[in-house]
Amino acid sequence: MFITFEGVEGSGKTTQIGFLAQYFFKKGIPFIVTREPGGSPIGSELRKLLLSEESKINRTTELLLYLAERSEHIEKVILPALKDGKIVLCDRFSDATRAYQIYGRKLQREEVENLIYFSTNGLEPDITLLLRLDPERALSRARRRDKANLFSEGKFESYDLDFHRRVYEGYELLAKEYQRIKVIDATGEKGDVFQEILKALIIAGVISEA
Amino acid sequence: MFITFEGVEGSGKTTQIGFLAQYFFKKGIPFIVTREPGGSPIGSELRKLLLSEESKINRTTELLLYLAERSEHIEKVILPALKDGKIVLCDRFSDATRAYQIYGRKLQREEVENLIYFSTNGLEPDITLLLRLDPERALSRARRRDKANLFSEGKFESYDLDFHRRVYEGYELLAKEYQRIKVIDATGEKGDVFQEILKALIIAGVISEA
Repeated sequence: MFITFEGVEGSGKTTQIGFLAQYFFKKGIPFIVTREPGGSPIGSELRKLLLSEESKINRTTELLLYLAERSEHIEKVILPALKDGKIVLCDRFSDATRAYQIYGRKLQREEVENLIYFSTNGLEPDITLLLRLDPERALSRARRRDKANLFSEGKFESYDLDFHRRVYEGYELLAKEYQRIKVIDATGEKGDVFQEILKALIIAGVISEA
Repeated sequence: MFITFEGVEGSGKTTQIGFLAQYFFKKGIPFIVTREPGGSPIGSELRKLLLSEESKINRTTELLLYLAERSEHIEKVILPALKDGKIVLCDRFSDATRAYQIYGRKLQREEVENLIYFSTNGLEPDITLLLRLDPERALSRARRRDKANLFSEGKFESYDLDFHRRVYEGYELLAKEYQRIKVIDATGEKGDVFQEILKALIIAGVISEA
């Protein structure tokens, strides 16, 4: 079972993945938590390049680096865990590439889809939890978080609101297109949002009880 | 004028680029020398990942990293120099991707060509000098060089002879396919090889006299 979390920056993915990990841990269900970019052996190096303000790489390079890291991430982390029968909880995956690179950066969809397929060998999540939070609100959350964290790598937060709006709209369009994407209202309290996630996982048959 | 140097490891590319740079310098012809991977602002980081034994990345990731670096290399280094009217001398470019990734690593040609096109926006060299040296000889040269250089990054040299043979054959096939590729016999003395290069550049109309 391969579960991904998606949503704009500040939508609460990290918090909710933590809650779900705790839930699986208490139930004795084997799982791993991983993230993109950064989950592979070469991930931390590439994460630095991708998220640093200084590198100022172009959008083609950005896409290719994300996909390079994903291919390693799948081979070295995701597939071995799935083969071990573990649930994989992943912070961002191909839908992030679609939302950010196609809708945010305006790269051509067909080309990006071909590249995604080439680098993932067609692997898609079983279920994707899309945390929906309007971009204004998400951005102000992300900014508060970054101010509190001296070591924040935040790059996305620095883009203009227009960019984040396009990413948000991109995610909405993807949710209409892909059955596996479950939209979770992320405006409420953390605990309430987590209850929504559990409900979605019960309906999808991933877990049997809250 | 965009000139690339290709050939298996140990074929003498670096030496010959040095000779040609010296030639252009003496003639007062403006030029730059650059290389792949490593010519872009993010190149040195990616070069480390690509050429280190430890990273052990898969062939898909390897291809994507080379192309990510190439896109930056073109935008930040090659195109600005060409716009300034300079001759660009580049140590390896897309033909290396073809020879190493398609023939060496056995990735599917059509996919690799699509990816090359996407990442280069169709930019190809005006002329490519392919230094031909049989793989056994080239490998033993590369090994001697590496022994003499404590800081050698050599990764390619560590592959088996079969791999290098496939790369060699790949270059030969490419030379038959692309008119712009000029084969230079690299078995002789350095100075003689350089005379061959000058001859090829005169015939191609790049320079008017030796």
